[in-house]
Amino acid sequence: MTYFNNINKIKYEGARSTNPYAFKFYNPEEKIGGKTMEEYLRFGVAYWHTFTEDLSDPFGVGTAIRPWDKYQGMDLAKARVEAAFELFEKLDVPFFCFHDVDIAPEGRNLKESNENLDTIVSMMKDYMKDSKTKLLWNTANNFTHPRFVHGAASSNNADVFAYSAAKVKKGLEISKELGGENYVFWGGREGYETLLNTDMKLEMDNLGRFYHMAVDYAKEIGNDAQFLIEPKPKEPMKHAYDFDVATGFAFLQNYDLQDHFKFNIEANHATLAGHTFEHELHYARITNTLGSVDANQGDTLLGWDTDEFPTDLSSSVLAMYEIIKNGGLGRGGLNFDAKVRRGSFDPEDLFHAHIAGMDSYAVGLRVAQKLIDDNVLEGIIDDRYKSYTEGIGLDIVEGKSDFHKLEQHALGLNEINNQSGRLERIKATINQYLLREYAGE
Amino acid sequence: MTYFNNINKIKYEGARSTNPYAFKFYNPEEKIGGKTMEEYLRFGVAYWHTFTEDLSDPFGVGTAIRPWDKYQGMDLAKARVEAAFELFEKLDVPFFCFHDVDIAPEGRNLKESNENLDTIVSMMKDYMKDSKTKLLWNTANNFTHPRFVHGAASSNNADVFAYSAAKVKKGLEISKELGGENYVFWGGREGYETLLNTDMKLEMDNLGRFYHMAVDYAKEIGNDAQFLIEPKPKEPMKHAYDFDVATGFAFLQNYDLQDHFKFNIEANHATLAGHTFEHELHYARITNTLGSVDANQGDTLLGWDTDEFPTDLSSSVLAMYEIIKNGGLGRGGLNFDAKVRRGSFDPEDLFHAHIAGMDSYAVGLRVAQKLIDDNVLEGIIDDRYKSYTEGIGLDIVEGKSDFHKLEQHALGLNEINNQSGRLERIKATINQYLLREYAGE
Amino acid sequence: MTYFNNINKIKYEGARSTNPYAFKFYNPEEKIGGKTMEEYLRFGVAYWHTFTEDLSDPFGVGTAIRPWDKYQGMDLAKARVEAAFELFEKLDVPFFCFHDVDIAPEGRNLKESNENLDTIVSMMKDYMKDSKTKLLWNTANNFTHPRFVHGAASSNNADVFAYSAAKVKKGLEISKELGGENYVFWGGREGYETLLNTDMKLEMDNLGRFYHMAVDYAKEIGNDAQFLIEPKPKEPMKHAYDFDVATGFAFLQNYDLQDHFKFNIEANHATLAGHTFEHELHYARITNTLGSVDANQGDTLLGWDTDEFPTDLSSSVLAMYEIIKNGGLGRGGLNFDAKVRRGSFDPEDLFHAHIAGMDSYAVGLRVAQKLIDDNVLEGIIDDRYKSYTEGIGLDIVEGKSDFHKLEQHALGLNEINNQSGRLERIKATINQYLLREYAGE
Amino acid sequence: MTYFNNINKIKYEGARSTNPYAFKFYNPEEKIGGKTMEEYLRFGVAYWHTFTEDLSDPFGVGTAIRPWDKYQGMDLAKARVEAAFELFEKLDVPFFCFHDVDIAPEGRNLKESNENLDTIVSMMKDYMKDSKTKLLWNTANNFTHPRFVHGAASSNNADVFAYSAAKVKKGLEISKELGGENYVFWGGREGYETLLNTDMKLEMDNLGRFYHMAVDYAKEIGNDAQFLIEPKPKEPMKHAYDFDVATGFAFLQNYDLQDHFKFNIEANHATLAGHTFEHELHYARITNTLGSVDANQGDTLLGWDTDEFPTDLSSSVLAMYEIIKNGGLGRGGLNFDAKVRRGSFDPEDLFHAHIAGMDSYAVGLRVAQKLIDDNVLEGIIDDRYKSYTEGIGLDIVEGKSDFHKLEQHALGLNEINNQSGRLERIKATINQYLLREYAGE
Repeated sequence: MTYFNNINKIKYEGARSTNPYAFKFYNPEEKIGGKTMEEYLRFGVAYWHTFTEDLSDPFGVGTAIRPWDKYQGMDLAKARVEAAFELFEKLDVPFFCFHDVDIAPEGRNLKESNENLDTIVSMMKDYMKDSKTKLLWNTANNFTHPRFVHGAASSNNADVFAYSAAKVKKGLEISKELGGENYVFWGGREGYETLLNTDMKLEMDNLGRFYHMAVDYAKEIGNDAQFLIEPKPKEPMKHAYDFDVATGFAFLQNYDLQDHFKFNIEANHATLAGHTFEHELHYARITNTLGSVDANQGDTLLGWDTDEFPTDLSSSVLAMYEIIKNGGLGRGGLNFDAKVRRGSFDPEDLFHAHIAGMDSYAVGLRVAQKLIDDNVLEGIIDDRYKSYTEGIGLDIVEGKSDFHKLEQHALGLNEINNQSGRLERIKATINQYLLREYAGE
Repeated sequence: MTYFNNINKIKYEGARSTNPYAFKFYNPEEKIGGKTMEEYLRFGVAYWHTFTEDLSDPFGVGTAIRPWDKYQGMDLAKARVEAAFELFEKLDVPFFCFHDVDIAPEGRNLKESNENLDTIVSMMKDYMKDSKTKLLWNTANNFTHPRFVHGAASSNNADVFAYSAAKVKKGLEISKELGGENYVFWGGREGYETLLNTDMKLEMDNLGRFYHMAVDYAKEIGNDAQFLIEPKPKEPMKHAYDFDVATGFAFLQNYDLQDHFKFNIEANHATLAGHTFEHELHYARITNTLGSVDANQGDTLLGWDTDEFPTDLSSSVLAMYEIIKNGGLGRGGLNFDAKVRRGSFDPEDLFHAHIAGMDSYAVGLRVAQKLIDDNVLEGIIDDRYKSYTEGIGLDIVEGKSDFHKLEQHALGLNEINNQSGRLERIKATINQYLLREYAGE
Repeated sequence: MTYFNNINKIKYEGARSTNPYAFKFYNPEEKIGGKTMEEYLRFGVAYWHTFTEDLSDPFGVGTAIRPWDKYQGMDLAKARVEAAFELFEKLDVPFFCFHDVDIAPEGRNLKESNENLDTIVSMMKDYMKDSKTKLLWNTANNFTHPRFVHGAASSNNADVFAYSAAKVKKGLEISKELGGENYVFWGGREGYETLLNTDMKLEMDNLGRFYHMAVDYAKEIGNDAQFLIEPKPKEPMKHAYDFDVATGFAFLQNYDLQDHFKFNIEANHATLAGHTFEHELHYARITNTLGSVDANQGDTLLGWDTDEFPTDLSSSVLAMYEIIKNGGLGRGGLNFDAKVRRGSFDPEDLFHAHIAGMDSYAVGLRVAQKLIDDNVLEGIIDDRYKSYTEGIGLDIVEGKSDFHKLEQHALGLNEINNQSGRLERIKATINQYLLREYAGE
Repeated sequence: MTYFNNINKIKYEGARSTNPYAFKFYNPEEKIGGKTMEEYLRFGVAYWHTFTEDLSDPFGVGTAIRPWDKYQGMDLAKARVEAAFELFEKLDVPFFCFHDVDIAPEGRNLKESNENLDTIVSMMKDYMKDSKTKLLWNTANNFTHPRFVHGAASSNNADVFAYSAAKVKKGLEISKELGGENYVFWGGREGYETLLNTDMKLEMDNLGRFYHMAVDYAKEIGNDAQFLIEPKPKEPMKHAYDFDVATGFAFLQNYDLQDHFKFNIEANHATLAGHTFEHELHYARITNTLGSVDANQGDTLLGWDTDEFPTDLSSSVLAMYEIIKNGGLGRGGLNFDAKVRRGSFDPEDLFHAHIAGMDSYAVGLRVAQKLIDDNVLEGIIDDRYKSYTEGIGLDIVEGKSDFHKLEQHALGLNEINNQSGRLERIKATINQYLLREYAGE
């Protein structure tokens, strides 16, 4: 059984290729910065957007044409697994990600839901024996069902807290069973619609308790997957408790969880929070909490999560710059938490979109590594901050100064000389690097 | 010498008054919730917007007509002090706030600047002997001068760090001299324009060092003013390090400063960060970091800091609700960090604007206290979260649960019953309270 | 058969009532400004949000508990009609509005869909004989079905254009059958996702042709309903062709349609376009294109159409001010294009929400009429612009001036005196009017 | 006298050049699409940002180091002319643009201001004899001075209307004297701060009258410059009357001005209005109103006009695509209405910034022309809309259809087949074109 008959394995053909079903920039085996591109980029396919998504939107029903949609129930779930591993192989991706409800339908109760999951997990495990594609992360969808209307771990209803815990418990077991590298928490309903009826303190305390229980249970069963919190500022809730990386970092410190969690950073969530993608990556990098990436892009002129496949090359250069400076993503990866537009409803569009995203990040990697090889930005920074490597600056950094000494220094200053930040020249240089990479340099 | 000849002391005349120079809702001596309105509201006048501001904007020069503008240099500075205490008395406000450069011009060097400050501070101290108006807070303006182009404590230039420290040192001395209740840090240039030339880790580390030195110096000189950080997400910088309260809270914890700082929360900064004003107040309240308030309002359809006088009654009700629930603001207050519009250029407009703001907060206080007296929102919340006061919910809260027990509970659940959040009814109730307050109830 | 057993007819009980199922401010028979409140406010219930909506969102399935959901297909459609007229009577509303697909399910083809519509329209007509509730407007939903994925009248596919025309044709026939006061066009898919594959000129030309054909057909069948275009800037499309009222007005003029269309203005669409609600109403009023209103509200901190019930009293005052100045809405009305929040899932919440909205507009009407009776804003405006009633100003207005004369005048001017705009005082006055209305004045 | 001693004439050196003072992509004489790059790109330098701007912002005073700032008054004005023509020559730009107050200081009255202008205009005229650099457009600054606080042509004060007219009269005379290709109207204060004190109808009527008088006067003096309105949605005013191109187009039609005006479209103003830059260009193109371009860029995460030099290559490709499809800009050009960042304060940064901008548009031109040569997007569009070239679609376009015929067609349809819009593949193709251009293709 094949679902994508007319598509062969996608291969690298270079920037001049006119074959739409070929990589133009992503060459898995090519070495960049001492690793193969595949090792660096660690691409993952998002099960929900690729195999479950029907391309509905708030004003329209689904448009997606999916050959597996002729099935229903568990048969549909199984067909999706078949389609998934066919796509994984044809795209040659090393990883995939899923929520529990993406892979198996909920049953009439928790027990039945878990049995459905067991069936599919077992089937996946079989497929994975013959596949290079591994589980980057899984998670529990604790936001779609009506029971989560007022939150999951932060619900005002203790039964819902318990149900959410049971789903994460199962998720951690699946994670261990399939050898997941990470386990993700996105609190889609962990937030509030209005403060007027909300006990935010209790809700956040409960969220802290929930995460500690998850840490304990993973330890108990010997699941050493990296735990990741995925920040998002809003949508579906008016306010989400993990607004951005900094807010999440405040939470982790306040609830003594910072040794157990890193962040899964999504580009579109960054821009919804008013940040650039690279800002969120950078903040996480310097606080040692950069875990994994949801590689998509938003539309900054639209106010919702558009989850587009990433094609903005400037952004992918800056993202890969942060990732290289972080020494790579460790056990994390680049999950395409991205869906084709509602008007791109053919099965083939799933390939076009992933190729577009993979090529964008490949360009990002190539150009970012070149910037590092040539010491372009690091050289600028070393030069700009050199006053902290000597004299009063070194004293400050080494903790040898105080307001008395600093005032004395200031009283002795005549004019203070600052240097131009040269932003425009730096931007031109980056553009030149982007284009020059393909001018044979 | 008088600058506002035609204006008498503003008094409370009630909601039916047609006198524009009267309070309609603010009655300083009236008791609400066990305190006088004056004790609760602790209004402050912002020196910069009221006495220094010329009402220029990025596309136009100043329009303000200010009788003291016939003077220059130190004479102007002195005239402003006279005008200030006249206005304080006529508005009957208990507090004022200033940056160093608001009250005295910078000299040719730090020494001269400090001498100018000494002259004016001495003059203010004299005025304060005969005035009820006290210093809510002062601060150092480390953002306007070109030397701060690349930051102050987070500058790439160690000389600028030193200069900034000297200015804060002086600010802390002035604070002690004038008996300031709080000392504020707003990092207008502490952030970045672009990551491309920025060492954010070093900059934030230096900011942490700077705050520790400030804490140490205040202790040394016996200044026990409450230290406050004022978050703002952006403007003038592309990204400010104190984006919002949560970001500031992450910073304080990360640099072990949480015992020394609270937050000065500005309404317009909240909305620029994508939050409601009450969200920021609430987050600070439940993390025990609510220090003081910059009582203004923004325009959520405009993307910059409009610093309008607060006239949104819904917002002032919700703000006062948080403040009452916090047990008041302690040493903090309600500083009108607000400027009249560029088209409201008469000296009289300064009175109209403050009256508008004070009356808005007085309405807020009255209505919020009534909501509390009638247990309106607290009753809703007690009811909504009662599942955490018994059974499995109580176990969760008391730390007696784990994923095994919770799963067992979940497996035994049939259908989960949630209750409606009743948001629309609650909003209607609040509107009714707002209007009913004046219907004689 | 009754669907809202526990709810009686909602009556006016005044601001002090503690009965949640009572109007506190809306008193249908009370006269304000020479009309009854009911005549002025012309409230309408939106069939889709009240009877069809399931309260799903992009991250969650429906939560609504609706007693009629035990039925399916045409039985469900009929049950909704029963529920609708029960709610109309209990809320005492004079109008309702619907899309074709709200009232009857689509069949296997156009013919069957039309037959379903005929059945329900006939049933509605029967109900309307015994009901005071009339049809404010109906419309064709040309956006939900996958066939409209690339647009309806602006689709790249001529078959879709034809199908859309057939649906509007049927809509106009239904409008005539039920005596609709207006007929609305909201082009949910008339716009583009990307310019890269779009012939915008052809699409807009086709839209123009489509509207002309609709005008012709209405004339042919003797349907004199007022035609309304409903602007919205974006969502679901990246760019909608009717971005705001001004954009629609440009379109109407360019395609010679301005004699045939007015606008249906939605508050939430206004704010999504970066305008205040009152701006859109005002622009329409002064271009003689104010037709009807979708009375809801958005959340300016969220970037999508939240369609909340209107509870912002400042906004309802300003909206009603425009409507009164317009001499009322003529054949238009105040349609609650608003849905209860996903967490307000009980049938009772439909009542709470409508009561909240109706009371808000009632407050708006009361206060706006008082502002007009007292000549508050009109007096300010007459005074501000008086320079155009004499001398050079009158010459300008009467077309008797030119650049030569104006230059001569300017050369003779010494200083130009402008008067303060007094914005802060005006805002305080409006707040005072809002509260004083209930202080017995 | 030279102001930029250390800088030589900037020349094209190609993508591999490491000389920061060289063009890497802009080669003035190279032919692209049948014209030289210089003919197509028609770059202009903005006098205000380059010679007058001091780099102050709302929270900081100027930082710019400009060698001519040692002069004052008319001497400064003259020094700026010298510096300007030196920079024009070294950058090899064909055009420049200015407001009246950029080139000469205002005097004590209109007469004196005009005399100052005459002196500088005469000096410019002399310089232009020996320079290839021409006047792209000039304009009157009717927004900075306090007299314009309530508007210029839309002021509530008829004296201000007259003064504004006199300034535009002078501007039109200067335009004729210097052979300006266009004359621009940006209504910085033509809008409102609040509707509460505004007679918008009178203000817009007056604006219409003003424009007609300008048209008449230009005709009278034989100035045939193209008239351009520059839309901007807000800032400094809360609401500007020329919100975007569509709003301006509505205005032009409503006041019968559409034969006399086109639009000057600014990238940053487009994004502030919620549109892409290419949307505004496209809308103007298909309504035959694309006049000229202010080539800058904004930051969509910031809510104000940042006026950055354009470095976003995707945007410059799409902009140049529209311009080529428009047959070029006619008498218009690409004015760099852009300022260096406050931290880029050296004179050299003016060169870095212009080089960055010119190279970005050169890349845009090269790639856009290649897309057109290869029929990439046009081919897609021809294919997508082919249903309108035959059968029912052709009938629609040719006006031979009506709702009866269309309904008949729709009744005969079984399933409607739409084709995927292929957005992701198209975006990947454009990225490939961007990079491939420099891969030697």
